Amino acid sequence: MLGDCLENVRKSVPLVHNITNYVTVNDVANVLLACGGSPIMSDEPEDVEDITSICGGLNINIGTLNQSSIKGMFLAGKKANELGHKVLLDPVGAGASALRTNTAVKLMDEIKFTVIRGNISEIKTLALGSGTTKGVDADVADAVTEETLDSAVAFVKSFAKETGAVVAITGAIDLVADAEKCYVIRNGRPEMGKITGTGCQLSGMMTAFLVANPDNILEGAAAAVCTMGLAGEIGWNNMKPEDGNSTYRNRIIDAIFNMDKETLDKGAKYEVR
Amino acid sequence: MLGDCLENVRKSVPLVHNITNYVTVNDVANVLLACGGSPIMSDEPEDVEDITSICGGLNINIGTLNQSSIKGMFLAGKKANELGHKVLLDPVGAGASALRTNTAVKLMDEIKFTVIRGNISEIKTLALGSGTTKGVDADVADAVTEETLDSAVAFVKSFAKETGAVVAITGAIDLVADAEKCYVIRNGRPEMGKITGTGCQLSGMMTAFLVANPDNILEGAAAAVCTMGLAGEIGWNNMKPEDGNSTYRNRIIDAIFNMDKETLDKGAKYEVR
Amino acid sequence: MLGDCLENVRKSVPLVHNITNYVTVNDVANVLLACGGSPIMSDEPEDVEDITSICGGLNINIGTLNQSSIKGMFLAGKKANELGHKVLLDPVGAGASALRTNTAVKLMDEIKFTVIRGNISEIKTLALGSGTTKGVDADVADAVTEETLDSAVAFVKSFAKETGAVVAITGAIDLVADAEKCYVIRNGRPEMGKITGTGCQLSGMMTAFLVANPDNILEGAAAAVCTMGLAGEIGWNNMKPEDGNSTYRNRIIDAIFNMDKETLDKGAKYEVR
Repeated sequence: MLGDCLENVRKSVPLVHNITNYVTVNDVANVLLACGGSPIMSDEPEDVEDITSICGGLNINIGTLNQSSIKGMFLAGKKANELGHKVLLDPVGAGASALRTNTAVKLMDEIKFTVIRGNISEIKTLALGSGTTKGVDADVADAVTEETLDSAVAFVKSFAKETGAVVAITGAIDLVADAEKCYVIRNGRPEMGKITGTGCQLSGMMTAFLVANPDNILEGAAAAVCTMGLAGEIGWNNMKPEDGNSTYRNRIIDAIFNMDKETLDKGAKYEVR
Repeated sequence: MLGDCLENVRKSVPLVHNITNYVTVNDVANVLLACGGSPIMSDEPEDVEDITSICGGLNINIGTLNQSSIKGMFLAGKKANELGHKVLLDPVGAGASALRTNTAVKLMDEIKFTVIRGNISEIKTLALGSGTTKGVDADVADAVTEETLDSAVAFVKSFAKETGAVVAITGAIDLVADAEKCYVIRNGRPEMGKITGTGCQLSGMMTAFLVANPDNILEGAAAAVCTMGLAGEIGWNNMKPEDGNSTYRNRIIDAIFNMDKETLDKGAKYEVR
Repeated sequence: MLGDCLENVRKSVPLVHNITNYVTVNDVANVLLACGGSPIMSDEPEDVEDITSICGGLNINIGTLNQSSIKGMFLAGKKANELGHKVLLDPVGAGASALRTNTAVKLMDEIKFTVIRGNISEIKTLALGSGTTKGVDADVADAVTEETLDSAVAFVKSFAKETGAVVAITGAIDLVADAEKCYVIRNGRPEMGKITGTGCQLSGMMTAFLVANPDNILEGAAAAVCTMGLAGEIGWNNMKPEDGNSTYRNRIIDAIFNMDKETLDKGAKYEVR
């Protein structure tokens, strides 16, 4: 069934507006193309409303936010809400600076997000609503492990209920939940953490999955997570001894490009709690 | 003869100033190096006049324009005109937002472009001079096909005459024309559309070809288009079953790096109308 | 002994704050991950002090400076100085525009740099303190060669003494010096110049080496230069006939990812003068 979500992306070629950081933006664009979507990037306040209007989804990533792009995020987000578009928040570095934390919290106050996707530290920061500067590891519970899984599942469901958004926490074990239901996903490889931007790439791709699966948001988000993780596994299998993280980046995007419904359905490792 | 244009780039190592989007800028730089040119990027208004002064050509791409970089485009463009440098416009997303359309139109009003290069939608938007927001597919005639080729050739020649620039429309069939003469080019692969920024890369590389072939602008522009398309073919032939769009991106740039005069002359597929 | 410097990076995983250009930023991030560090990018003035506070080192690269990021550089640099962090300056294009030259000079006036790393042209510009616009090749002595080596070594030691920073001049022969001692390094390949941003990558990686080797700054900087150059050699050996500069970029980062203490100690080619 997750394979259908991917197939829907390939069939509908959703146009996704990205306000994202300049570090990983090229990979985000290529991942969107790899999964069957179509990317547009624009962060200029005077430009974003027009651009988001012609898209089906908006991906807001605060990885290299600045005063101008922050304005763009609010304008684009409100316009996207008005038009009923899918909107995703990737709160990169929330907790690492006051500006990032406050911007993410304010975005959540003023914009209705379809999905909020981050690592456990970022999501914990948002759940606490803290506006003070924290180190990247401050106020962060242990990573999601088999031992802490029950409480993590309860946490993510509760934050999803509070925000009305699907919440995706990615890490060694990925959690994708609404208030009632949580996908616990065990795809991926630890080496993915040695590539910059796999999280950003997932956020871009996930937005395309949301647009293409409007009646199955939770499942669409989970399918995107499984696609990324499985591509990480397939890409790793294609590595040669002399390859490293730069080639691995290409191998993962390549694996998404070549992913089909059957491969995803067969390779997806998840349970629903 | 197109091969000589490439050879002239390799011999003269033209320095190209790029005001281009942050999505594909790294690939633009590497393509410029691959073809034998040398890239510099700068968009800060206070910096661009100095930078463009030491270059031979200027590549203006509005893909992620903002208020500051727009100012930079006008300042750099005027300075480059003053100095008699080659100047190329890549009106990315003209037609998709009012800001993009209006900026491109105003740039054409105030700056003399050597070449305007875009897809058929963007060029049609500019030819109509429309300042109202359009969807990316609005006001766009059908793609250039064998059936619509005659009228497309007439259109591109007429727009070239009106603007005084060489006009390059790239797509399945590429057209590169001045008022009198149109290169109809059939190099390339459809899979190139699954990589972000092949158009941006071409614009950067083409600017180097213009600088290196000052007395043969039309032919230089056509040679750049053939080089890109042929690299797309060669790159594709080097693909393995597990490769996808990310590796394809590398393969194309690699093929440009390895391209020589003979390969280009033998592989270029064009007619002149 | 240089291998220990690399090992210290892998053991301590230093967090490096980068204010760097948008052309090569993705490669800088992946190189930092490849060598064992961890990258964060932020240039917004309101964000940089918080971000730099949680890091151990700051890499300032003026490659695509703008009014906002320049403010960010000064704020971050001063905060990093306050906190005793390692701070590196990469004066990209100093000499090519008044803004670049003046910004680099002013940064050197107001911020204490641990290392200044650039090509011979950039460093000569800084050593002269000139604030007038120069072409990229103006006021530049011949490249460092075996013939000019003695005077180049004297120059770099003298500039290191004047600034109190370790100075790294990279090129065909690399020099890394403090006032007393100069590493003359002969790793690397000329083809590295056909990839955009190997210098930027080195600056990012070197900052991680400085953080991880606080009591051995000179040696840490030299180890980073040898790592980059040796990776260029190993990466080149892994090239196939159809490969070009884009694949070479990946091969070099891959080689850094796979580099270990023994490989570096065995492959490093240097003498101390």
